[in-house]
Amino acid sequence: MKKSTLYAAAPIPAAPEQLPTGPLKDFPKLAAFFEARQPETPCLAVDTDIVEAQYKALVAAVPDALCFYAIKANPARPILDRMVKLGANYDCASLNEILMVLEAGASPANVLFGNTIKKAGEIAEAHRHGVMKYACDSLVELEKIAKNAPGAKVFCRIIVSNSGAAWPLSKKFGCTEDMAREILRKAPGLGLVPYGISFHVGSQQMDVTQWRDPILRAAGLMRELAQEGIRLKALNLGGGFPARYRQPIPAVEAYGQAIVGALNEAFGEHFWPEVMLEPGRYICGDAGVIQAEVVLISPDAEDPNKRWVYLDAGKFSGLIEPESIEYRIVTEKDGDPMGPVVIAGPTCDSVDVLYENAGYELPLTLAVGDKVYLLSTGAYTTTYSAIAFNGFPPLKDYYV
Amino acid sequence: MKKSTLYAAAPIPAAPEQLPTGPLKDFPKLAAFFEARQPETPCLAVDTDIVEAQYKALVAAVPDALCFYAIKANPARPILDRMVKLGANYDCASLNEILMVLEAGASPANVLFGNTIKKAGEIAEAHRHGVMKYACDSLVELEKIAKNAPGAKVFCRIIVSNSGAAWPLSKKFGCTEDMAREILRKAPGLGLVPYGISFHVGSQQMDVTQWRDPILRAAGLMRELAQEGIRLKALNLGGGFPARYRQPIPAVEAYGQAIVGALNEAFGEHFWPEVMLEPGRYICGDAGVIQAEVVLISPDAEDPNKRWVYLDAGKFSGLIEPESIEYRIVTEKDGDPMGPVVIAGPTCDSVDVLYENAGYELPLTLAVGDKVYLLSTGAYTTTYSAIAFNGFPPLKDYYV
Repeated sequence: MKKSTLYAAAPIPAAPEQLPTGPLKDFPKLAAFFEARQPETPCLAVDTDIVEAQYKALVAAVPDALCFYAIKANPARPILDRMVKLGANYDCASLNEILMVLEAGASPANVLFGNTIKKAGEIAEAHRHGVMKYACDSLVELEKIAKNAPGAKVFCRIIVSNSGAAWPLSKKFGCTEDMAREILRKAPGLGLVPYGISFHVGSQQMDVTQWRDPILRAAGLMRELAQEGIRLKALNLGGGFPARYRQPIPAVEAYGQAIVGALNEAFGEHFWPEVMLEPGRYICGDAGVIQAEVVLISPDAEDPNKRWVYLDAGKFSGLIEPESIEYRIVTEKDGDPMGPVVIAGPTCDSVDVLYENAGYELPLTLAVGDKVYLLSTGAYTTTYSAIAFNGFPPLKDYYV
Repeated sequence: MKKSTLYAAAPIPAAPEQLPTGPLKDFPKLAAFFEARQPETPCLAVDTDIVEAQYKALVAAVPDALCFYAIKANPARPILDRMVKLGANYDCASLNEILMVLEAGASPANVLFGNTIKKAGEIAEAHRHGVMKYACDSLVELEKIAKNAPGAKVFCRIIVSNSGAAWPLSKKFGCTEDMAREILRKAPGLGLVPYGISFHVGSQQMDVTQWRDPILRAAGLMRELAQEGIRLKALNLGGGFPARYRQPIPAVEAYGQAIVGALNEAFGEHFWPEVMLEPGRYICGDAGVIQAEVVLISPDAEDPNKRWVYLDAGKFSGLIEPESIEYRIVTEKDGDPMGPVVIAGPTCDSVDVLYENAGYELPLTLAVGDKVYLLSTGAYTTTYSAIAFNGFPPLKDYYV
């Protein structure tokens, strides 16, 4: 399958009585919400039906895989409620995240404490709540888990290439296979269950073939350990599934085919381990739209053809990812002639520039007070918000 | 004066009965606070006596200047209280910041709405509270001010070189001198008072000579406009005064001498305009210390001599500046043999690495659970904190 022919379509919720027109025509529920509610800007609105559709699409694309929603992408209660309804599992980065999913009604059996960097007290408290799955990538962390969560199932995270990812994760996480072998061998002696291997190919991974090599390497390691009597149950393929930004992305089915193919190659068609996925961005990114307002438009000091468009949303209201991600940006005036712009946020900080050299154009008729919509901003925005930089409040969010 | 011979000493508050030893021996009040209170980490503690000493040192170094505290650096109420007691003025970036200083007892006459990017409603509300000084760098903003703050005094911000700054601010802010001339000429016809010129040489500016050129240029512009009958009252020299990070910095007196010299050169020794300063980082940076805890130490996957030291404080708990700023980092074990480290935060985000290639070393005896102190972290930390990334709460702060 040629990668360039594969483009994901945003799942569309059930059509409302009147199909909307305008910049949010693909998001009828959100268009209706902004129209009816006229919320103060900047704000994020998320269509939880799209969240559900994304979840179902991924589960369908990788049959038999368990989907652990990486709640750090967006831990809002309405999203957790929807996940609980769908019977999801949860990848949690902290004790607080674990408490959030339990509060939403999730079972601790469905929770993975996926951060490889945990305080002893957090581990002990998670264990007290019945959480039994923990990730690690070092002997120090393994010992911490042994001491604070006796009997836990441990995953060892190996370091893999993140080529093709918009947001590569190495070298902060993951250890070498030699170290993984040592960790998993030590686990039983410490009263732990060596349970699985995990890896992460990097966030917003555009290359569907990137899972193959780590799957093969993990399978090799699992076979080696099995010969010593250490039979790992699970293989955690991490996240990395993309949201729809400016660049076309492969369809989720293409990811599924590539992953299933690699699993068959690594394990044969009959005896796979328990396969886990940790989608975050993919689940809720495309479901959200940020509505911002134009605060100021002024000419560039050097290039009179270029306008600086200052929005009331910027790097400190949750949009810190524009360094590696180009959001689709639409306005009510998109039919009008366009011209080049720098897009910046409202704070007195020079780093609060979203796009300076990314080739964005906006309508020449755009004026102060106009609304601007940043699409696919449902993930990694609300929780990134600065609490009060320049006195501005964090990004408000709504779930419809 | 040779720049390399000028190093700032942190102002020391009155000695306590017993001088402390250990890593915080230069911060006796903070050492005593951490010892007595044993606060949950990570947290910031700020010595407000140091805040006061910094304020007084700057005022002494640039006599006759009005000091507008840039409250975005740290808007905590105890700092604002101290500033009000000292009779400071305030540079505010948003309506919320204005409301904070007024609530602390400041007079609106002492407030500058210094952000060049303001919503119409924010301007109107500030004006309703009696704020009369507004910055702008575009005709669109001038017209917005005219409509929403009739009679206001306007400053036009010109764009200047930020060479020598750790955190350069151009090109987001400031306009050309031609544009400034046009803006200030138009102000009277719109019912505004063309009041002053402002500029900013960039945050953490290490080169004391950087104020000279913009002062001379601003003086030229003021003379030109005076010939047309537009007599500007004020010259706002912005901020840029540094805090003490790893690199030595010139003493505040050196900044004062360079600025006074440039003002004399530009205006003669007798008739200066009203000179304004906007220090933020300088006022409260050195007064604060972040106490963090070591969560994990593990060997680098490629270089066994290098340890990854994961703290419970990181880029999402307010430390986003390490891209351009190297904090001094001390521990209780600093006498022990040292070894190279990467210093990273606790979140599941690969960007949450504070220092990877900056040559930091920490004691080889450092262990999980040990405390680590980041010095001069009183500015641009608390408000930068992510509200809840990975479920971690924002940085807690204390004022002693």
